[in-house]
Amino acid sequence: MRIVIALGGNALLQKDQPPEAELQQQNISAAARAIAEIANGHELAITHGNGPQVGLLALQAESYSGAKPYPLDILDAESEGMLGYQVQQALMNALPERQIVALLTQVLVDEKDSAFKNPTKPVGAFYPPSERQELSEQHDWELAEFEKGLRRLVPSPEPKEILELPAIKLLVDHGMTVVCSGGGGIPVVHDSSGKFRGVAAVIDKDFTSALLATALEADVLLLLTDVDAVYQDWGKDNARPLKQATVGELRSITFETGTMAPKIEAACRFVEATGNFAYIGHLNQIANILAKQSGTKIMPG
Amino acid sequence: MRIVIALGGNALLQKDQPPEAELQQQNISAAARAIAEIANGHELAITHGNGPQVGLLALQAESYSGAKPYPLDILDAESEGMLGYQVQQALMNALPERQIVALLTQVLVDEKDSAFKNPTKPVGAFYPPSERQELSEQHDWELAEFEKGLRRLVPSPEPKEILELPAIKLLVDHGMTVVCSGGGGIPVVHDSSGKFRGVAAVIDKDFTSALLATALEADVLLLLTDVDAVYQDWGKDNARPLKQATVGELRSITFETGTMAPKIEAACRFVEATGNFAYIGHLNQIANILAKQSGTKIMPG
Repeated sequence: MRIVIALGGNALLQKDQPPEAELQQQNISAAARAIAEIANGHELAITHGNGPQVGLLALQAESYSGAKPYPLDILDAESEGMLGYQVQQALMNALPERQIVALLTQVLVDEKDSAFKNPTKPVGAFYPPSERQELSEQHDWELAEFEKGLRRLVPSPEPKEILELPAIKLLVDHGMTVVCSGGGGIPVVHDSSGKFRGVAAVIDKDFTSALLATALEADVLLLLTDVDAVYQDWGKDNARPLKQATVGELRSITFETGTMAPKIEAACRFVEATGNFAYIGHLNQIANILAKQSGTKIMPG
Repeated sequence: MRIVIALGGNALLQKDQPPEAELQQQNISAAARAIAEIANGHELAITHGNGPQVGLLALQAESYSGAKPYPLDILDAESEGMLGYQVQQALMNALPERQIVALLTQVLVDEKDSAFKNPTKPVGAFYPPSERQELSEQHDWELAEFEKGLRRLVPSPEPKEILELPAIKLLVDHGMTVVCSGGGGIPVVHDSSGKFRGVAAVIDKDFTSALLATALEADVLLLLTDVDAVYQDWGKDNARPLKQATVGELRSITFETGTMAPKIEAACRFVEATGNFAYIGHLNQIANILAKQSGTKIMPG
């Protein structure tokens, strides 16, 4: 089978952990060993998040007064470099017989995407509310007030096309395991002059994973997180895990933002586009998920 | 022909320029347009330096007090992400008919390389000499005193093997243009437990380019810089450019460290290993170099 595996942010850094290289490497090594459990006989492409890491890179860049902070697309690329390397190396050590590569990934978004008019994703440092005017003047940023202070908001447009797809496909077709689409990919537009150009945005990594899995004609999309299944009525007394559900059933349920909603939507998109199955479950249960003993199976219908 | 092109540091950032993303992108776009002049009909792999960029990432990481600075191999990976993305995107815009990809590159070095006993490459910030003891205790760093203060020294071991070579070869064989080996590659060792692990070192980017060109069986290795040729007696009144030279002739001349010495050594290694030609010259003269009207041609013998 050809399997696209999306590693959730917690596979890289757990919620209470500081963003340190060593902790990150330990988590990533554990994730790689989990993937190794089910790798045998399958073609693999691995995607991953980058939220806390790109946040840290932004803070580091802003702390140094000797140079203008890099724009967000560059920070995204830095985080693809850092995490791509760590994931690749961990997989090399967990699956020594395989050839593993990590590809920088640019993802085309539409300049006319309505997300650009309505930035929703907070990134980078918190600032004192008194600095609102200065920040707006300096940076042309959209700002929103949070409990800890002001924070920059960036748009989250839809991923339209993975620009490196032919290379990713070639490598996977030849049995290589490809790490790509880190952090949902570096968002780029194809502007009116016909050039590609990075933009200040964040692409949902699960949506990009679904796009990748669909374009690679994957047999399975496996979305891994730190929760063991999709729950109906999550957080309530009557919460119950869904062992399986059709796309139609999932689309009839409202999942709150900040919960599993993007993973569920990504799974539905892949299943609708391909007629194949997607699974959502806990990283540590990866073998059990494929054996249908854990997680949520998302089916056509 | 199959051509490996090594972009010198000045192709990314000129000596007097601050390390800003926009300047860097302008320089890289100019380099990509230069490469586009000679691309037609040829297979290409592009390598590049990362000196000022990894230095800036180190300074940024040290400026932020909220997390331990990342180790050097991670900073190297970040710089491969940032620069790989910028070079890839510039080439996409200069050569829109091509498929361009950027691969993270790990380069195997030998733990027993004598360079590890004799660190020579300064990296990162300058510190006041009074902090010597504190720095040594905190970081296990080798330090050296420069005019502007103390600076960390890291080893520069020999590159032994490019771990992603099978993927790079597959992509180039299929006509894709591959950006790789940024900054000489991320240095890794294969340690006594049989695992790959990053090390705090810097690999000479021209040596890695020679290794790549040899392993790819390239027809030409093109080492581009901001000087128009190899000069005998560089800096003296009788300085003269060499239009061509054999490996034997070049090896009989002593080129001072900090000059073209690593480029010349890299060219000699490639020519010796393959019997093909290497060229050293100015980025802006790329077409003239291949037409033998500029630069220095290095030949077997």
